[in-house]
Amino acid sequence: MLKSLEEYSPVELRHLIREGKYTKPTSGLAAGYTQANLVILPKDLAYDFLLFTQRNPAPCPVLEVSDAGSRKLKEFAKDIDLANDFPKYRIYRKGRLDEEVTSVESFWRDDLVSFLIGCSFSFESELIAAGIEVRNITQKVNVPMFNTNIPLKKAGKFHGNMVVSMRPIPEKQVIKAVKVTAAMPKVHGAPIQIGSPQHIGIADLQRPDYGDAVEIKQGEVPVFWPCGVTPQNVIMQIKPEFVITHAPGHMLITDVKNTSLKYE
Amino acid sequence: MLKSLEEYSPVELRHLIREGKYTKPTSGLAAGYTQANLVILPKDLAYDFLLFTQRNPAPCPVLEVSDAGSRKLKEFAKDIDLANDFPKYRIYRKGRLDEEVTSVESFWRDDLVSFLIGCSFSFESELIAAGIEVRNITQKVNVPMFNTNIPLKKAGKFHGNMVVSMRPIPEKQVIKAVKVTAAMPKVHGAPIQIGSPQHIGIADLQRPDYGDAVEIKQGEVPVFWPCGVTPQNVIMQIKPEFVITHAPGHMLITDVKNTSLKYE
Repeated sequence: MLKSLEEYSPVELRHLIREGKYTKPTSGLAAGYTQANLVILPKDLAYDFLLFTQRNPAPCPVLEVSDAGSRKLKEFAKDIDLANDFPKYRIYRKGRLDEEVTSVESFWRDDLVSFLIGCSFSFESELIAAGIEVRNITQKVNVPMFNTNIPLKKAGKFHGNMVVSMRPIPEKQVIKAVKVTAAMPKVHGAPIQIGSPQHIGIADLQRPDYGDAVEIKQGEVPVFWPCGVTPQNVIMQIKPEFVITHAPGHMLITDVKNTSLKYE
Repeated sequence: MLKSLEEYSPVELRHLIREGKYTKPTSGLAAGYTQANLVILPKDLAYDFLLFTQRNPAPCPVLEVSDAGSRKLKEFAKDIDLANDFPKYRIYRKGRLDEEVTSVESFWRDDLVSFLIGCSFSFESELIAAGIEVRNITQKVNVPMFNTNIPLKKAGKFHGNMVVSMRPIPEKQVIKAVKVTAAMPKVHGAPIQIGSPQHIGIADLQRPDYGDAVEIKQGEVPVFWPCGVTPQNVIMQIKPEFVITHAPGHMLITDVKNTSLKYE
């Protein structure tokens, strides 16, 4: 009898994806294991971007940076091919989405540096484990994300404002939600704002700039976390010649458990 | 009546140092404020070094990186001149110490990037505040430091083994010492080894590779922390054309309190 996809280990899933047999979003797969965002840049932009992530770790938590030209990782996955192990990639040219592909092998160059960036999937599973409902998961939609007026620290070519994700949390559970996520700085850490969207330049919670709106019930407070869309946003603003990213929701499944992203 | 040096604020001390009126070690000055190590590299080495610090944050905790060519900082000090505000600098050429100077203004170049690196001075004051004696402070000597066999993660040109500092801690206080320092990852964080120097390649605790030997009393355990000598060591191994560092003990006095280096 065939085992169901949910029972596959991270490395088994990466093999399946590498062989082109799975090309869909990775949400719900390999429960408990960290999934990662991807940005691949030519080396001539890599220093400014690495410095940008160093100066803005909350929205841009770097899990691992590859060696230039390498399709391997050392920390987050052993048996891995960065050019094939994401179910779907996006190719951007001059800041414009050019195509979506399931392999970037034919685009690979010796000067490409891959940045793996932490994703709020990891802290959402910890919130649920702590007994806190995550509305976008309950409603089976993408988390609502908003542009803000919170300026980021500039680094070389890169600058811009923070993008945040919003989750409505019952007032009595807000402190617990802060504590759970504050302990996971490699996946955005603590919230940046609680309860006052207008203070960070958000006018209407039902009209997110990215993702889907979610219901906010009586007695719930909107809580805002730094969001991994920020680095992609900042990169696209300078319209670089060539960038590869993962397609939204089509993440890398790593060998590292979410729980190991907590403070050591 | 003149006030004593111990009463000067960080910015007052930086002014004094900038004007060449104080050129001695900074230990004991501006109590409670973070002091920082310095490495200044030409931009062509800065990417590999920044990546090295990203991969090895415990021995190389970066507090702030300047913009290329800039003598200013944005986070750790406002009124600052990186070329004059350390009491003493070292100029290295091809990995060899060339001279010690009190200003590097005449050496400044547009391609120089300054890395401020966290220093164990910050966690020592927290250990003392927690009621733990720091032997090298009691004995008024430099902390003993040792080369180890602990390999670091390679990044481009940079590779090598970790250097550690050692402090003897009474057995009953070891756990407290771990907790206090673990909460300060920007200044090396938790120990890397407790009680077994031979497991990390240290043969004789009375013969440190850098600094001074200290007494280890009956009932005390040698505890080893990642040490900020590591990055300088790793840089000098590749014999770069030109590097500036602070002279040992002659640190930058920043505007940031040690307590704010704890987990946010």
